[in-house]
Amino acid sequence: MEPFRVHILGCGSALPTLRHFPSSQVVEVRGKLFLVDCGEGTQIQLRRSRLRFTKISAVFISHLHGDHCFGLIGMLSTFGLLGRTARLTVYGPRELETILYSQMQQFCRDMDYEVDFCAVDTRQRAVVYEDRSLTVESIPLDHRVNCCGYLFTEKPTLAHIRRDVADFYEVPVSQYNLIKAGADWVTANGETVPNSRLTLPADPVRSYVYCSDTHYMPTLASQLQGVTTLYHESTYGEDNLQRADKYYHSTARQAALVARDAGVRQLLLGHYSSRYEDEQVLLREAQEVFPNSLLTDEMAVFDV
Amino acid sequence: MEPFRVHILGCGSALPTLRHFPSSQVVEVRGKLFLVDCGEGTQIQLRRSRLRFTKISAVFISHLHGDHCFGLIGMLSTFGLLGRTARLTVYGPRELETILYSQMQQFCRDMDYEVDFCAVDTRQRAVVYEDRSLTVESIPLDHRVNCCGYLFTEKPTLAHIRRDVADFYEVPVSQYNLIKAGADWVTANGETVPNSRLTLPADPVRSYVYCSDTHYMPTLASQLQGVTTLYHESTYGEDNLQRADKYYHSTARQAALVARDAGVRQLLLGHYSSRYEDEQVLLREAQEVFPNSLLTDEMAVFDV
Repeated sequence: MEPFRVHILGCGSALPTLRHFPSSQVVEVRGKLFLVDCGEGTQIQLRRSRLRFTKISAVFISHLHGDHCFGLIGMLSTFGLLGRTARLTVYGPRELETILYSQMQQFCRDMDYEVDFCAVDTRQRAVVYEDRSLTVESIPLDHRVNCCGYLFTEKPTLAHIRRDVADFYEVPVSQYNLIKAGADWVTANGETVPNSRLTLPADPVRSYVYCSDTHYMPTLASQLQGVTTLYHESTYGEDNLQRADKYYHSTARQAALVARDAGVRQLLLGHYSSRYEDEQVLLREAQEVFPNSLLTDEMAVFDV
Repeated sequence: MEPFRVHILGCGSALPTLRHFPSSQVVEVRGKLFLVDCGEGTQIQLRRSRLRFTKISAVFISHLHGDHCFGLIGMLSTFGLLGRTARLTVYGPRELETILYSQMQQFCRDMDYEVDFCAVDTRQRAVVYEDRSLTVESIPLDHRVNCCGYLFTEKPTLAHIRRDVADFYEVPVSQYNLIKAGADWVTANGETVPNSRLTLPADPVRSYVYCSDTHYMPTLASQLQGVTTLYHESTYGEDNLQRADKYYHSTARQAALVARDAGVRQLLLGHYSSRYEDEQVLLREAQEVFPNSLLTDEMAVFDV
């Protein structure tokens, strides 16, 4: 299967610590890189990750709190200094447009590439990006300001040719694409070989959803049925349940409830409050509800 | 003598590297902290330095290139999250005002402290800040955009009482301040003890100037006569003299020429181009002209 991975650049929350950077991650799908959120220091973390800056084709911003977007102008500016020429599209809540362009006007005057802004309606689920390999959908979240998650779903691939069977029936390579797409094969002496003999099933479709920041949304699970990997903010433990409620954040246990109810394969925890010196308590609370919960950490890479 | 120090938070230039952060430093004068420039990641470096965030009373921005100010909004926002209540003044070129306030309007709505902006005319030398302990003056520099350095000069202190002599003549402690300020002492039997017998000279006045970014300015030295410590950008070595000229930067040797001609005590080098993996070459070139040149580095602290 082609790579579908998440590279964690930052999994802390609003207050910076020496353990965590603010929110930022790179979703890698079939060789393309998409940046999701861009807290201060993202460009430093990108450099540390050794991911190719030039391969980032789009940036998705969840909401306009500083820990999710203060690194954007610096990163765009650095791309310019590094001689980027490829267009870059920034997706985010419409309030971002004015801020972004006014900063660019001051700081990014001589760049050799264009930055397009594409406003995302954070209140509805919709496809905001699509190419040959994947779609990206907005997923409305419940936070103090307009905020949405992003669901990355790869497009179905074709079936795999069984080379041994194809060779046995002397199928020319020129016919492979038709067969991958579902065609049977008729041999020279008129025998029909059914497609199911000639192929192995396509890889299962994988999907990844980034949900940060959000109040616990019991209804979110129904939106995420069948998702492979869920990143769900888990700012607090149960000891700060009321604080989570007050600031429209979630506890690790609540993240796990969403994961369990959506039936995902794995849950990635992040957006940790600076008050947790050791996030193991968050992990334990999540695993009590959903065993396949994992702590994210800077520079960690997860297969979707 | 009371502390007068410079804490280096970042001494890299526009392109971030894993060795250096962009420009930022804290000038500590008699217990007060002043931030000079605020590149991306300054708040992380501040945390790392263990300097008290709350003690920063003013921020001085040299010019509006991203590597000197992209960390400002994040730092101000974090001060708010940490519950700061004390007013903070930001000094910088007037173009900063609109950018700063429009960002604050979006990102810093519920802060318990005020941020004042004070426009600095970068084209003239003038006192921009003054308190009981020091003055800060703008020093015009020659860069691609409006840019000035900042000269921190402590105010003269009083003379020191010679306790042994004062005790011998039975001078009451209540008279010490008068004597420190220059008064003689008349003993009970009418003998006049001259001030020079009772005191040791005040500490020499120290001063520190931050000059970054700038083209080499031979005239700068005359402005900086008697300065104790000079921080002068040294983006390039002599191998990139033409590049320095083109982009209005200086070489380490040019920084040393300014230091030598101004007769400063020590020269701090910084704002290194990312192309120098090892800045020793810059140090050597500076020391050939001005032996007491030093390389700065993140978390290094220099006594002025």
